[in-house]
Amino acid sequence: MTAYETDNIFAKIIDGAIPSHKVYEDDNFLAIMDVFPQSRGHVLVLPKRPSRNLLDADPAVLASVLPMVQRIAKAVVKVTGADGFRVVQFNEAPAGQSVFHLHFHIIPAYEGKEIGKHGAGGKAEDAELAAMAKAIAAELA
Amino acid sequence: MTAYETDNIFAKIIDGAIPSHKVYEDDNFLAIMDVFPQSRGHVLVLPKRPSRNLLDADPAVLASVLPMVQRIAKAVVKVTGADGFRVVQFNEAPAGQSVFHLHFHIIPAYEGKEIGKHGAGGKAEDAELAAMAKAIAAELA
Repeated sequence: MTAYETDNIFAKIIDGAIPSHKVYEDDNFLAIMDVFPQSRGHVLVLPKRPSRNLLDADPAVLASVLPMVQRIAKAVVKVTGADGFRVVQFNEAPAGQSVFHLHFHIIPAYEGKEIGKHGAGGKAEDAELAAMAKAIAAELA
Repeated sequence: MTAYETDNIFAKIIDGAIPSHKVYEDDNFLAIMDVFPQSRGHVLVLPKRPSRNLLDADPAVLASVLPMVQRIAKAVVKVTGADGFRVVQFNEAPAGQSVFHLHFHIIPAYEGKEIGKHGAGGKAEDAELAAMAKAIAAELA
């Protein structure tokens, strides 16, 4: 396994060097809109503590993740009216990981509509992501 | 959201009424081979405490899940020689959930080989699953 690379895009988003559409932030987590959403309301939950993926993550950090994912997913479902959602996490490139900072996808599902393929979707419109982020953040507040 | 249905197949596997290929068991968790694997070494991690999915799960149970998934995934990677893995969890039928007891998929990924589509694969051979379960269980012991 390769070590953590500090110049990945999520590290820069956590540092504030690159902007994002934030839905939640505290000392330990940042949650943002995925700019290449697989469905409407696709959110990423990032523990701030640097780790490449699940293999090198601190178990104490991992223990805090799913309660946070649950909380954010409930807000996403409420705001989007989704009929369900997937929680997905990729480890290493052959599994689909493209940014090497541990992150969890919350991907809403809508009845009768197939979820897009990871990495195959287009970039969402900024205004749409901003509005969605604002609504989810308000639901979480 | 619908309530927990006690007659689901994972509840019966946890109770021991239906057999499974176990890779790990303690008071709180059961990990078994997925009989319809999306790739070689596909394991399911089930918290024993009844919940339908992430929406109704006790946050205290959720806190214990990812450290366990990490531990089991490392053993799966070691035994299978996988080049990565996905952690996937479905909530409600439109998202792909087909058994309504909270469970987490560990799906190994192999370089140059696409992971099968959820629900589209065939049933694996019993002997193969038994051998894999035994090897992962030995790695975890």
